Amino acid sequence: MNTLPTVLAFDVFGTVVDWHGSIASEVTRLGLQVNPDAFATAWRQGYRPAMAKVRSGALPWTKIDDLHRLILNDVLDDFNIQGLSENQIHHLNLVWHRLNPWPDTVTGLNRLKKQFTLVTLSNGNLGLLANMAKNAALPWDLILSAEVFRHYKPDPETYLGVAQIFDIEPSAVMLVAAHKDDLASAYECGLKTAFIERPLEFGAKVTRTDLHVETYINYHAKDFIDLADQLGT
Amino acid sequence: MNTLPTVLAFDVFGTVVDWHGSIASEVTRLGLQVNPDAFATAWRQGYRPAMAKVRSGALPWTKIDDLHRLILNDVLDDFNIQGLSENQIHHLNLVWHRLNPWPDTVTGLNRLKKQFTLVTLSNGNLGLLANMAKNAALPWDLILSAEVFRHYKPDPETYLGVAQIFDIEPSAVMLVAAHKDDLASAYECGLKTAFIERPLEFGAKVTRTDLHVETYINYHAKDFIDLADQLGT
Repeated sequence: MNTLPTVLAFDVFGTVVDWHGSIASEVTRLGLQVNPDAFATAWRQGYRPAMAKVRSGALPWTKIDDLHRLILNDVLDDFNIQGLSENQIHHLNLVWHRLNPWPDTVTGLNRLKKQFTLVTLSNGNLGLLANMAKNAALPWDLILSAEVFRHYKPDPETYLGVAQIFDIEPSAVMLVAAHKDDLASAYECGLKTAFIERPLEFGAKVTRTDLHVETYINYHAKDFIDLADQLGT
Repeated sequence: MNTLPTVLAFDVFGTVVDWHGSIASEVTRLGLQVNPDAFATAWRQGYRPAMAKVRSGALPWTKIDDLHRLILNDVLDDFNIQGLSENQIHHLNLVWHRLNPWPDTVTGLNRLKKQFTLVTLSNGNLGLLANMAKNAALPWDLILSAEVFRHYKPDPETYLGVAQIFDIEPSAVMLVAAHKDDLASAYECGLKTAFIERPLEFGAKVTRTDLHVETYINYHAKDFIDLADQLGT
């Protein structure tokens, strides 16, 4: 466990970018008559059930842009929001391409990039992740997505796929994520693991209660700067 | 035809990097008793027949690293090179991960990146392209490969796949390549096209005779600086 990995694979939504704050801001900017926190939370809550339908085969392969739109249609209904044009709804759906990084993200990634190969391992689709990276100056060496593997996390094909892409052992890959279930699944596949706390992931009103140390987590860091410090970069 | 594309998709071997010169240098450095030009040419000549076997279904999906190794084994035999260890052969095979960019490549790409989304569209596998980009500081917004589409160029799935990834029309994508057959295939799929001359692609001893203007080529440029000038970036 003391050997360092060569590839760091990053979960993106919540770990690298602040989906909750970015969506709440967009909703506020649009002047929608809703609670921005509740709207952001509701949109994100549709995400796992939608992916579960793809993972179980109930839906054919569907990329996240399209799942986000299906969920958004329901959320707009649920919040009784009317009067948006198709163009406005389409633009709102693409807010996931414009999510803001956390304050430490770009500095931390640029430090880590000097020593490690940095890749994404996200359920977001390739176009979304590429647009996000260009918009937010995220210095990925390679953007990998569920779309490449045609499997959503936590299917093992995703974690093991990163190692196969680079022709290295799973233990030479470390998943970096703010979500323990993701890390536990990666650990079961033989990857190393780094947890990032991200206390504001679900908004300032929600206190995360899952920030304690776990046996399956190799590095527990406050943010990417702290992780770079711990890894000696 | 006057509207500019939003995504530039680059062929890589020969267009972005100098495979012939890089391989010849590696062979010279290794002290192999062969003509470095002939060795580089022979290795590359095995590439199309090997991919054709995958495209026809005679071989199952095989990534370029593995095709390169199959060809290399034959080339080492043909040139009667003996005495290399498995580690040395493996390292030599990975020279494709370490190919050098042309002198204008990095400056040109960084200029183009200010206005366009830059992606690769290469038959090289993702790990190869990521290692190459990190080694040579190639500033891709997204690395796309035949490996993503499970089709090798010139299958239409590759050219059309770029447009699908970004949810844009094929005409909003421009293929940038030093090979006219690649450009002709992209043009048939509705993409825009830019030809880059690369007169030294096959070594200093081979004079390219295919540098004239073609009706299916939208931009004809000497190098990436010239292309950036023509595109006004």
